Amino acid sequence: MAEEHREYEYHNGSKFWDKWNDYIGEFVYGGIDGSVTTFAVVAGAAGANLDSSVVIILGFANLIADGFAMSVGSYLSNKSELERFEKHEQVEYWEVEHLPEKEREEVKEIYAAKGFEGELLEKVVDVITANKKRWVDVMMKEELGMIKEEKSPIKMGAVTFISFIVVGFIPLLVYVLDYLSSTKIEQPFLVAILLTSVAFMLIGWLKSSVNQTNPFRSIIETLMLGAFAAGLSFLVGDVLAKMF
Amino acid sequence: MAEEHREYEYHNGSKFWDKWNDYIGEFVYGGIDGSVTTFAVVAGAAGANLDSSVVIILGFANLIADGFAMSVGSYLSNKSELERFEKHEQVEYWEVEHLPEKEREEVKEIYAAKGFEGELLEKVVDVITANKKRWVDVMMKEELGMIKEEKSPIKMGAVTFISFIVVGFIPLLVYVLDYLSSTKIEQPFLVAILLTSVAFMLIGWLKSSVNQTNPFRSIIETLMLGAFAAGLSFLVGDVLAKMF
Repeated sequence: MAEEHREYEYHNGSKFWDKWNDYIGEFVYGGIDGSVTTFAVVAGAAGANLDSSVVIILGFANLIADGFAMSVGSYLSNKSELERFEKHEQVEYWEVEHLPEKEREEVKEIYAAKGFEGELLEKVVDVITANKKRWVDVMMKEELGMIKEEKSPIKMGAVTFISFIVVGFIPLLVYVLDYLSSTKIEQPFLVAILLTSVAFMLIGWLKSSVNQTNPFRSIIETLMLGAFAAGLSFLVGDVLAKMF
Repeated sequence: MAEEHREYEYHNGSKFWDKWNDYIGEFVYGGIDGSVTTFAVVAGAAGANLDSSVVIILGFANLIADGFAMSVGSYLSNKSELERFEKHEQVEYWEVEHLPEKEREEVKEIYAAKGFEGELLEKVVDVITANKKRWVDVMMKEELGMIKEEKSPIKMGAVTFISFIVVGFIPLLVYVLDYLSSTKIEQPFLVAILLTSVAFMLIGWLKSSVNQTNPFRSIIETLMLGAFAAGLSFLVGDVLAKMF
């Protein structure tokens, strides 16, 4: 009973979270993308024994260009999803207007599949088709399986940009500090690994709180993903540096 | 009439495309991501006058690490979306089982909002709540606004990886050819710009065919996005190279 009660509580609590879910999800993936991209440059340069100035130059070039491209990409993809919904909705309005018999038949089929029959089915179809907005709404959800997303394309793009730049800056931080301070930081690559690992763990924890899954599993999953990607980058840098 | 007929045709034709829409959309964004990321390294290195070998080393390190991270990210994000749906569905089943009166009331509210009333409303609620699968289905769509996505997380991840690597390799192609051939290619950066521009245009065209929007606008949009991102990268490389 306690377990079941908690499930029920979770469900109702999550309705609040669902409002923010899309944006926090976008922050999580933007942050992972930013830190992996920048850390790939850092790790590749370390694997190839390239100079710290190369790390800073290409790290920032990548951070800004990719952060910009990702956020515009997120904006465009969310906008085209919205436009696709609106286009289909417009066509359904057209169909309801010009082919009402066919569309009425479709509503009938949808509600017959829900178990309605005979006179009751006819009455249900009458009520649904009495109002065009309601009629189109049924066709969108039941025929096309499309529900209008509440997320704003411009906000999604902004969230991507901020998380990409902020989290993506973390692997570069130590190189910038090293350059600015009078005393040299020893083994900057190790410090960068440490800081980036902490960032991955925080993102993993944030991801689990959005998806309401096990935080431990989510932290390990994100950390391993980042470590594996960075390891690949280091290896490729190391191998190619020996070839070229 | 001709215009309207075309709209109707579009709508029916698009039901076929919708099956592939998610995967082609994923291919488009994976491809943009891959080519922008790699081209950012190329442009940043060109802006900073770095050696071609640095371009190849960091370009590949980034291509492989980021391609891997993006595809795992896409897999995880689609998987958690699916899990979120299943978790909510499970809770709705629990609620229908343990709080049937409350859930019946919710179905009644949903159908009252659709314009049903009196005896007909009661009969509709009877039919909906007579079958638990149907009942939960109504709660998922109408109360939570959630529809189960048909896309497979593992296929989405695979599509991202392939498009990221294939399209992302294009900006590096000329540097690899330059290294492998006995005759030097003059101005490899210019050739890379040309090839990457063609790739952006093809992606823009593909995007418009998925979204059924104006191909010309889509091509220009994608090309400008890529050009602006690459320009930023070149500029950052150039400015930082003068500082460090």
